[in-house]
Amino acid sequence: MYIIKASGQKVKFNPLKIRKTCLRAGADRALALKIERLVSAQVREGMSSKRILRLIIDLLGKLSPLTSTRYTLKRAMLSLGPSGFIFEKFMVFLLRAYNYQAYCPPILMGHCVGHEIDIVATISPFGQKKEEKYLIECKYHNAPGIKTDLKDALCLWASFEDLREKGFDYPWLISNTKFSKSAIQYADCRNIKLLGWQYPADKSLNRLVENKKLYPITILKHLDKILAEKLFSQNIILASQLLSQGTEKLNFKTGIAKNKLNELIKEAKLILQD
Amino acid sequence: MYIIKASGQKVKFNPLKIRKTCLRAGADRALALKIERLVSAQVREGMSSKRILRLIIDLLGKLSPLTSTRYTLKRAMLSLGPSGFIFEKFMVFLLRAYNYQAYCPPILMGHCVGHEIDIVATISPFGQKKEEKYLIECKYHNAPGIKTDLKDALCLWASFEDLREKGFDYPWLISNTKFSKSAIQYADCRNIKLLGWQYPADKSLNRLVENKKLYPITILKHLDKILAEKLFSQNIILASQLLSQGTEKLNFKTGIAKNKLNELIKEAKLILQD
Repeated sequence: MYIIKASGQKVKFNPLKIRKTCLRAGADRALALKIERLVSAQVREGMSSKRILRLIIDLLGKLSPLTSTRYTLKRAMLSLGPSGFIFEKFMVFLLRAYNYQAYCPPILMGHCVGHEIDIVATISPFGQKKEEKYLIECKYHNAPGIKTDLKDALCLWASFEDLREKGFDYPWLISNTKFSKSAIQYADCRNIKLLGWQYPADKSLNRLVENKKLYPITILKHLDKILAEKLFSQNIILASQLLSQGTEKLNFKTGIAKNKLNELIKEAKLILQD
Repeated sequence: MYIIKASGQKVKFNPLKIRKTCLRAGADRALALKIERLVSAQVREGMSSKRILRLIIDLLGKLSPLTSTRYTLKRAMLSLGPSGFIFEKFMVFLLRAYNYQAYCPPILMGHCVGHEIDIVATISPFGQKKEEKYLIECKYHNAPGIKTDLKDALCLWASFEDLREKGFDYPWLISNTKFSKSAIQYADCRNIKLLGWQYPADKSLNRLVENKKLYPITILKHLDKILAEKLFSQNIILASQLLSQGTEKLNFKTGIAKNKLNELIKEAKLILQD
């Protein structure tokens, strides 16, 4: 039996992947096995992997609400669009939460030409005198099938080389999706730092988000696109910001009705209390 | 009065541009001035630059058929899609016509990673012993408003650097559209050769095509998409190939009806005889 991936590719259906998805989402083995059985029974020829994922999430939601919330993070990260600008802002918040100094710089003049750099970040690693300075390129994709590819790593390295005089220590490629094999191979070879979905395994973007509960507001079920835009325009990207700012201030800033804001804040509380 | 460019940008209508378009297409000053007056009288607020170009081409066609044929080259080059593969093949033909040895190589292993290089070309410049070897990236766009940008030049340079051991002398970026200012600035600085629409002025892609009449088959008015695909699939890219192969052979190879082929060949003859 064949299913259709987000990229449009046709692949053989593999029930084991359902179990793995559940385990990755934080389900225990018994629950993962149960969902594998239940979902497999519903899969039909030509079904999209998105539809299958929906079935998994619905079951996780019913059988283990906490695991389900965590799993929706992937889709929440894909909803930080349509342009890559919000994802950049989100990454500035995340880097700061991990003790980096981070900002979006104006155009930086290199040896040959001016470069639009997404983020400049610096950190003083523990026990080190000199701080490390990173030149960061953010690649935002709005579909899970699109991997950040070799081209992005090549471009970034050429920019880094052209900006040598600015004193950057490493280039850093950050994406909300996965990296292609050749992008990883090239990055390893050229000392380009990578951060993306499930990469690197021990300190992946999802782990960094979960460890400090830096969930984007797009994880909230009660949030639609119009509400998201209103909040984004006021630089509110994280669910935790809803709690720290409160109903009154948010209502004044965004014009969103108080009852709607209360609903969002209630949901954010639930997720952040987990 | 404002008109809309192919990129969607709104710009002030400038009648002088009509005259320049005509001159660039090869019309003499008197004809250019005449067309400027006739077309300007028809331009209305919000009209697309494409529509205005169509008016110019129609008038050129009526008043000076030879000039008109030449001008449709731009659109013919934009129709070598939908993928960039046919444009690459076209460029191999063109390079060979200018005494380069050119071919599409398999994946080339660099210092870090394998690279998909579009074309490798070599030439022995007149009076020089050593031949020059170029690593070529072709950027095909199917709309005139899209310029080949800095990113493409950066990526190419990083690939070139990674392939240093393969003995390439220069990277070469070839596009069927124009280059952005920063792409040109970076290319000048890094010794990247550029070839594109009207660039460089003295040896631009359009000049190289016109000088040796290497018109793509998409310049023929009687060619539709289905016929183009049939011919492309048999590696027939240039109008001159229709003449050199002839009706019988083309009919056998492509299955296109003989009367249709005769019509195309007749048109190709007219253009190539100019």
